[in-house]
Amino acid sequence: MHEPDEIMPEFYAPLENWTVTQGRDIYFTCTVNNLGKYKVAWIKSDSKAILAIHTNLIAHNHRLTVTHNGHNTWKLNVINVQKNDTGSYMCQINTQPMILQV
Amino acid sequence: MHEPDEIMPEFYAPLENWTVTQGRDIYFTCTVNNLGKYKVAWIKSDSKAILAIHTNLIAHNHRLTVTHNGHNTWKLNVINVQKNDTGSYMCQINTQPMILQV
Repeated sequence: MHEPDEIMPEFYAPLENWTVTQGRDIYFTCTVNNLGKYKVAWIKSDSKAILAIHTNLIAHNHRLTVTHNGHNTWKLNVINVQKNDTGSYMCQINTQPMILQV
Repeated sequence: MHEPDEIMPEFYAPLENWTVTQGRDIYFTCTVNNLGKYKVAWIKSDSKAILAIHTNLIAHNHRLTVTHNGHNTWKLNVINVQKNDTGSYMCQINTQPMILQV
Protein backbone atom coordinates (compact mmCIF):
# COMPACT_ATOMS: atom_id res chain seq x y z
CA MET A 1 0.00 0.00 0.00
CA HIS A 2 1.17 3.55 -0.53
CA GLU A 3 0.98 6.64 1.64
CA PRO A 4 -1.59 9.27 0.60
CA ASP A 5 1.17 11.81 -0.17
CA GLU A 6 3.55 9.34 -1.84
CA ILE A 7 4.69 10.24 -5.37
CA MET A 8 3.64 7.27 -7.47
CA PRO A 9 5.59 5.88 -10.44
CA GLU A 10 4.49 6.81 -13.93
CA PHE A 11 5.46 5.71 -17.40
CA TYR A 12 7.41 8.22 -19.43
CA ALA A 13 6.69 6.93 -22.92
CA PRO A 14 4.57 4.18 -24.50
CA LEU A 15 6.09 0.87 -25.57
CA GLU A 16 6.94 0.60 -29.25
CA ASN A 17 5.30 -1.75 -31.71
CA TRP A 18 7.78 -3.97 -33.52
CA THR A 19 7.49 -5.93 -36.70
CA VAL A 20 10.60 -7.99 -37.31
CA THR A 21 11.82 -10.81 -39.43
CA GLN A 22 12.47 -14.14 -37.74
CA GLY A 23 16.05 -14.34 -36.52
CA ARG A 24 16.44 -10.61 -35.84
CA ASP A 25 16.72 -9.01 -32.41
CA ILE A 26 14.32 -6.58 -30.75
CA TYR A 27 14.21 -4.64 -27.55
CA PHE A 28 11.34 -3.11 -25.67
CA THR A 29 12.03 0.01 -23.64
CA CYS A 30 10.09 0.89 -20.51
CA THR A 31 10.82 4.28 -18.98
CA VAL A 32 9.44 4.94 -15.52
CA ASN A 33 9.67 8.06 -13.40
CA ASN A 34 9.46 7.98 -9.60
CA LEU A 35 9.85 4.22 -9.35
CA GLY A 36 10.86 4.54 -5.69
CA LYS A 37 10.44 1.29 -3.79
CA TYR A 38 8.58 -0.41 -6.61
CA LYS A 39 9.85 -2.83 -9.24
CA VAL A 40 9.53 -3.10 -13.00
CA ALA A 41 8.46 -6.49 -14.33
CA TRP A 42 8.04 -7.82 -17.86
CA ILE A 43 5.18 -10.16 -18.77
CA LYS A 44 4.15 -11.72 -22.06
CA SER A 45 0.54 -10.57 -22.11
CA ASP A 46 -1.12 -13.38 -24.03
CA SER A 47 0.42 -16.30 -22.12
CA LYS A 48 0.75 -14.25 -18.89
CA ALA A 49 4.24 -15.71 -18.52
CA ILE A 50 6.45 -13.71 -16.17
CA LEU A 51 9.61 -12.91 -18.10
CA ALA A 52 11.59 -10.82 -15.63
CA ILE A 53 11.39 -8.79 -12.45
CA HIS A 54 13.85 -5.94 -11.94
CA THR A 55 16.95 -7.29 -13.70
CA ASN A 56 16.25 -10.90 -12.72
CA LEU A 57 15.24 -13.13 -15.58
CA ILE A 58 12.40 -15.44 -14.51
CA ALA A 59 11.60 -17.24 -17.76
CA HIS A 60 14.06 -19.99 -18.65
CA ASN A 61 14.62 -18.56 -22.08
CA HIS A 62 18.20 -17.92 -23.08
CA ARG A 63 17.14 -15.53 -25.84
CA LEU A 64 15.93 -12.96 -23.30
CA THR A 65 17.93 -10.39 -21.38
CA VAL A 66 16.90 -7.45 -19.25
CA THR A 67 18.98 -4.38 -18.68
CA HIS A 68 18.58 -1.27 -16.55
CA ASN A 69 20.47 1.91 -17.34
CA GLY A 70 20.83 2.75 -13.64
CA HIS A 71 18.31 5.55 -13.97
CA ASN A 72 14.74 5.22 -15.23
CA THR A 73 15.00 2.98 -18.29
CA TRP A 74 14.48 -0.77 -18.46
CA LYS A 75 15.01 -2.79 -21.62
CA LEU A 76 13.80 -6.25 -22.50
CA ASN A 77 15.92 -7.74 -25.29
CA VAL A 78 14.73 -10.65 -27.38
CA ILE A 79 17.44 -12.02 -29.62
CA ASN A 80 16.98 -14.31 -32.60
CA VAL A 81 13.24 -13.69 -32.66
CA GLN A 82 11.07 -16.76 -33.27
CA LYS A 83 7.48 -17.13 -34.43
CA ASN A 84 6.25 -17.91 -30.91
CA ASP A 85 7.64 -14.60 -29.62
CA THR A 86 4.78 -12.87 -31.44
CA GLY A 87 2.31 -11.17 -29.15
CA SER A 88 2.14 -8.29 -26.76
CA TYR A 89 4.55 -7.56 -23.98
CA MET A 90 3.67 -5.76 -20.77
CA CYS A 91 5.83 -3.59 -18.58
CA GLN A 92 4.28 -3.77 -15.12
CA ILE A 93 4.96 -1.92 -11.88
CA ASN A 94 3.99 -3.57 -8.61
CA THR A 95 2.06 -0.68 -7.14
CA GLN A 96 -1.31 -1.36 -5.57
CA PRO A 97 -3.27 -1.23 -7.78
CA MET A 98 -0.66 -2.37 -10.26
CA ILE A 99 0.03 -0.05 -13.23
CA LEU A 100 1.10 -1.28 -16.64
CA GLN A 101 1.69 -0.51 -20.25
CA VAL A 102 1.40 -2.88 -23.19
CA MET B 1 15.65 -24.34 -21.60
CA HIS B 2 15.47 -27.90 -20.36
CA GLU B 3 17.46 -30.96 -21.21
CA PRO B 4 15.67 -33.56 -23.33
CA ASP B 5 15.76 -36.13 -20.49
CA GLU B 6 14.96 -33.67 -17.70
CA ILE B 7 11.97 -34.58 -15.51
CA MET B 8 9.66 -31.60 -15.84
CA PRO B 9 7.45 -30.19 -13.08
CA GLU B 10 3.78 -31.14 -13.02
CA PHE B 11 0.78 -30.04 -11.01
CA TYR B 12 -0.53 -32.56 -8.54
CA ALA B 13 -4.07 -31.26 -8.10
CA PRO B 14 -6.23 -28.51 -9.61
CA LEU B 15 -6.76 -25.18 -7.83
CA GLU B 16 -9.98 -24.91 -5.87
CA ASN B 17 -12.85 -22.55 -6.64
CA TRP B 18 -13.78 -20.35 -3.72
CA THR B 19 -16.89 -18.37 -2.97
CA VAL B 20 -16.50 -16.34 0.16
CA THR B 21 -18.11 -13.50 2.02
CA GLN B 22 -16.27 -10.19 2.09
CA GLY B 23 -13.99 -9.99 5.12
CA ARG B 24 -13.24 -13.73 5.26
CA ASP B 25 -9.91 -15.34 4.43
CA ILE B 26 -9.08 -17.76 1.63
CA TYR B 27 -6.08 -19.70 0.51
CA PHE B 28 -5.19 -21.23 -2.82
CA THR B 29 -3.06 -24.35 -2.81
CA CYS B 30 -0.69 -25.23 -5.63
CA THR B 31 0.97 -28.62 -5.42
CA VAL B 32 3.82 -29.28 -7.82
CA ASN B 33 5.89 -32.40 -8.27
CA ASN B 34 9.43 -32.33 -9.66
CA LEU B 35 9.80 -28.56 -9.36
CA GLY B 36 13.59 -28.89 -9.56
CA LYS B 37 15.29 -25.66 -10.52
CA TYR B 38 12.02 -23.95 -11.42
CA LYS B 39 9.95 -21.52 -9.38
CA VAL B 40 6.27 -21.24 -8.51
CA ALA B 41 4.67 -17.85 -9.10
CA TRP B 42 1.18 -16.51 -8.39
CA ILE B 43 -0.57 -14.16 -10.80
CA LYS B 44 -4.03 -12.60 -10.74
CA SER B 45 -5.23 -13.74 -14.16
CA ASP B 46 -7.56 -10.91 -15.12
CA SER B 47 -5.24 -8.01 -14.27
CA LYS B 48 -2.08 -10.07 -14.96
CA ALA B 49 -0.61 -8.62 -11.78
CA ILE B 50 2.30 -10.62 -10.42
CA LEU B 51 1.48 -11.43 -6.81
CA ALA B 52 4.43 -13.53 -5.71
CA ILE B 53 7.39 -15.57 -6.90
CA HIS B 54 8.65 -18.40 -4.74
CA THR B 55 7.94 -17.07 -1.24
CA ASN B 56 8.65 -13.46 -2.20
CA LEU B 57 5.62 -11.22 -2.26
CA ILE B 58 5.75 -8.90 -5.27
CA ALA B 59 2.42 -7.08 -5.02
CA HIS B 60 2.34 -4.35 -2.40
CA ASN B 61 -0.74 -5.79 -0.79
CA HIS B 62 -0.56 -6.43 2.93
CA ARG B 63 -3.52 -8.82 2.78
CA LEU B 64 -1.49 -11.40 0.82
CA THR B 65 0.96 -13.97 2.10
CA VAL B 66 2.64 -16.92 0.44
CA THR B 67 3.84 -19.99 2.23
CA HIS B 68 5.73 -23.08 1.19
CA ASN B 69 5.57 -26.28 3.22
CA GLY B 70 9.20 -27.12 2.38
CA HIS B 71 8.08 -29.93 0.10
CA ASN B 72 5.75 -29.59 -2.89
CA THR B 73 2.94 -27.34 -1.67
CA TRP B 74 2.63 -23.56 -2.11
CA LYS B 75 -0.21 -21.57 -0.62
CA LEU B 76 -1.42 -18.10 -1.46
CA ASN B 77 -3.40 -16.63 1.42
CA VAL B 78 -5.74 -13.70 0.97
CA ILE B 79 -7.02 -12.34 4.25
CA ASN B 80 -9.98 -10.03 4.77
CA VAL B 81 -11.23 -10.66 1.21
CA GLN B 82 -12.49 -7.57 -0.63
CA LYS B 83 -14.72 -7.20 -3.68
CA ASN B 84 -11.75 -6.41 -5.97
CA ASP B 85 -10.10 -9.72 -5.05
CA THR B 86 -12.74 -11.43 -7.20
CA GLY B 87 -11.32 -13.14 -10.27
CA SER B 88 -9.12 -16.01 -11.19
CA TYR B 89 -5.71 -16.77 -9.78
CA MET B 90 -2.95 -18.55 -11.62
CA CYS B 91 -0.20 -20.74 -10.27
CA GLN B 92 2.61 -20.55 -12.83
CA ILE B 93 5.89 -22.42 -13.20
CA ASN B 94 8.69 -20.77 -15.14
CA THR B 95 9.47 -23.67 -17.44
CA GLN B 96 9.92 -22.96 -21.13
CA PRO B 97 7.19 -23.08 -22.30
CA MET B 98 5.63 -21.95 -19.04
CA ILE B 99 3.03 -24.26 -17.47
CA LEU B 100 0.15 -23.03 -15.39
CA GLN B 101 -3.11 -23.81 -13.70
CA VAL B 102 -5.99 -21.42 -13.01
